[in-house]
Amino acid sequence: MSRTRLEVFSDAVFAVAITLLALNLTVAGPGHGPLLHQVGDHWPAFLAYLISFATIGLIWVNHHALIGNLALVDRNLALLNLVLLLFVVLIPVDTATVSEYLALGGQDARVAVILYAAAFLGMGLSFAGIFEWTLGPGRLRQPVPERARWKARLRFGTASILYLTAIAVAFLSPLAALAVVGVVPIYYIFERNLAIGAPADVRQQ
Amino acid sequence: MSRTRLEVFSDAVFAVAITLLALNLTVAGPGHGPLLHQVGDHWPAFLAYLISFATIGLIWVNHHALIGNLALVDRNLALLNLVLLLFVVLIPVDTATVSEYLALGGQDARVAVILYAAAFLGMGLSFAGIFEWTLGPGRLRQPVPERARWKARLRFGTASILYLTAIAVAFLSPLAALAVVGVVPIYYIFERNLAIGAPADVRQQ
Amino acid sequence: MSRTRLEVFSDAVFAVAITLLALNLTVAGPGHGPLLHQVGDHWPAFLAYLISFATIGLIWVNHHALIGNLALVDRNLALLNLVLLLFVVLIPVDTATVSEYLALGGQDARVAVILYAAAFLGMGLSFAGIFEWTLGPGRLRQPVPERARWKARLRFGTASILYLTAIAVAFLSPLAALAVVGVVPIYYIFERNLAIGAPADVRQQ
Amino acid sequence: MSRTRLEVFSDAVFAVAITLLALNLTVAGPGHGPLLHQVGDHWPAFLAYLISFATIGLIWVNHHALIGNLALVDRNLALLNLVLLLFVVLIPVDTATVSEYLALGGQDARVAVILYAAAFLGMGLSFAGIFEWTLGPGRLRQPVPERARWKARLRFGTASILYLTAIAVAFLSPLAALAVVGVVPIYYIFERNLAIGAPADVRQQ
Repeated sequence: MSRTRLEVFSDAVFAVAITLLALNLTVAGPGHGPLLHQVGDHWPAFLAYLISFATIGLIWVNHHALIGNLALVDRNLALLNLVLLLFVVLIPVDTATVSEYLALGGQDARVAVILYAAAFLGMGLSFAGIFEWTLGPGRLRQPVPERARWKARLRFGTASILYLTAIAVAFLSPLAALAVVGVVPIYYIFERNLAIGAPADVRQQ
Repeated sequence: MSRTRLEVFSDAVFAVAITLLALNLTVAGPGHGPLLHQVGDHWPAFLAYLISFATIGLIWVNHHALIGNLALVDRNLALLNLVLLLFVVLIPVDTATVSEYLALGGQDARVAVILYAAAFLGMGLSFAGIFEWTLGPGRLRQPVPERARWKARLRFGTASILYLTAIAVAFLSPLAALAVVGVVPIYYIFERNLAIGAPADVRQQ
Repeated sequence: MSRTRLEVFSDAVFAVAITLLALNLTVAGPGHGPLLHQVGDHWPAFLAYLISFATIGLIWVNHHALIGNLALVDRNLALLNLVLLLFVVLIPVDTATVSEYLALGGQDARVAVILYAAAFLGMGLSFAGIFEWTLGPGRLRQPVPERARWKARLRFGTASILYLTAIAVAFLSPLAALAVVGVVPIYYIFERNLAIGAPADVRQQ
Repeated sequence: MSRTRLEVFSDAVFAVAITLLALNLTVAGPGHGPLLHQVGDHWPAFLAYLISFATIGLIWVNHHALIGNLALVDRNLALLNLVLLLFVVLIPVDTATVSEYLALGGQDARVAVILYAAAFLGMGLSFAGIFEWTLGPGRLRQPVPERARWKARLRFGTASILYLTAIAVAFLSPLAALAVVGVVPIYYIFERNLAIGAPADVRQQ
């Protein structure tokens, strides 16, 4: 299993998924009222687009950092990576569902946001699973010392905890749940200690 | 013909096909009943999505292993590879057809599952064809010894045999046929002796 | 301008275009008659799919051979390559139009096939333009000798001549015109002297 | 952060976006009048397609030149690059909106063209932001001397100025605004002094 090909395939999946996201922004077209109103009524689609784009983008950055520091790329990693991608490709669909149902409120909006957060939760757990795999012997260029593991696990697991919170919050308010989902990419913009396995100077960059 | 470019092109096709799969999961949208019911009624789409994703994912892993061990990449291989991809890109369409027709039962469900298994059969036979090509002189870094060839052929051909079985089973039960199709990726998760042409230590990894 | 990035971008465009082709094969779905009849009525879509897939696939193989033998990759080549890709991405759309109109016959079928052949003609002429560019000094690893140029031009130009023929034939019979378009990839499967600029031993491979 | 992976991901996003552009050219199909008339009525779609394709194509060429000359690729650059891609993936959607509304004229055509120019403006400003980042110490292989910076900024900023002009012009004439948007790729075909940070001989190529 070569690192390059794992990266090229993953990058292509991330790229297609991130580009398909925008298709949800297409308006209904002529005969559905003034364009400005159509665009205005599309605010849930724009909001969901921004959150999904930022999340896939940050997952790509973190994927990059993690895979780039591996000393070993094998078939098991490729299979774990496929599980991650299984959830990544669900995101455009779940973004579309949130876009359509959020403004309607009620039970349907709740279900839509829960599906959305669940796809991200699957992605977060798969990513944490890949991180667990990297802790095995000889897998990282610079192994994570025993004492630093739980801190690192927490950093990788923060996303999953937030997505679980979002699912719980959805029962109170779908919009608030969406806000919780949107916190994750913001967290990972500022959390820069994810370059696990990299030499110390790279980690501090 | 460079190995890299064959891989990049193939990876991109695999990636686009695997990402398009999820588009079949899109629900009909507001005005088609409660979202939860719509999602529940979509179970054949979810099932077909999982099977197609796992199959394309595993084909990608095996493609990777086979191409990575080649000593030679030429125009004939590129043409054989195109035949493989011809069937890969059919999979999202046939997945959509199964998703729509499976729950309806009857003759249409049977036809849908047969088309689905037939696309996979084409993919399996093309892959076996590529493997045959690798048996020619000077094509693998470490040639498959004569006595090991039939065993290897069987390993590569198992998918095609299972897809033929699925087509036969479809006349009895489309759902059972789908289950047979779903066995293939599970088989290839556990069958790890496909790294043909690799040095022995890599094969046992 | 790096060769690698020109190749990766082109490969991704070829890959997305070739995968989108298959989307034209999607049947109308439940409520539009027995699935077997729907599939049967789709024969123009299958025919157009096969021709378009084979043509994009062969153009990819030839693109690969030509770019791989370049000694220089510059901004002008990148712009010429963009013109080629401009026509490549038109092919899925024109394939869809042929799929819908061919069986209807009459003026619309003629227009659909002419649009289809015209997109391929644009692709063929752009490719011939890239070949012309390679004849400049220092652009090929092994320059094409003066006396071999017209023969090489003819080989690269055969596609364009056939597409022009297809456009003319479309006025008599759209189906016959489609057959002429389908001859091009078959020609390029057997015409192997396109590895222009490669050392002689590679060309004869 | 490796340069290669940033390039592969960006190239894939550019490639998917540029290929999706053409999908706007699909005609309504049988039952919507003669095909020739449908194609003729599609002229705004063809015009928007050409402008969007040329713009994404040229942005890709310039992105290539800028990233290829970097001495350093870090997480901040990856985040800036994601902002650029956020606008790139909006272009197929906004191209579709312009295609549908331009010929209708009035307020809707104006809104459509402004949305279209705004997506390009976001792309132009992000690109200028990436250029600003490259001015930091140690980021370019050959730093831009202090005295050349404003001239370079102007070259990179010309696109944004033109897009702002297009938005202003849209209040007078949406079609004229579209023409202004179309001037940008033509400008960048002839403005070749963008290979910032490259050795002087490369810049003059």
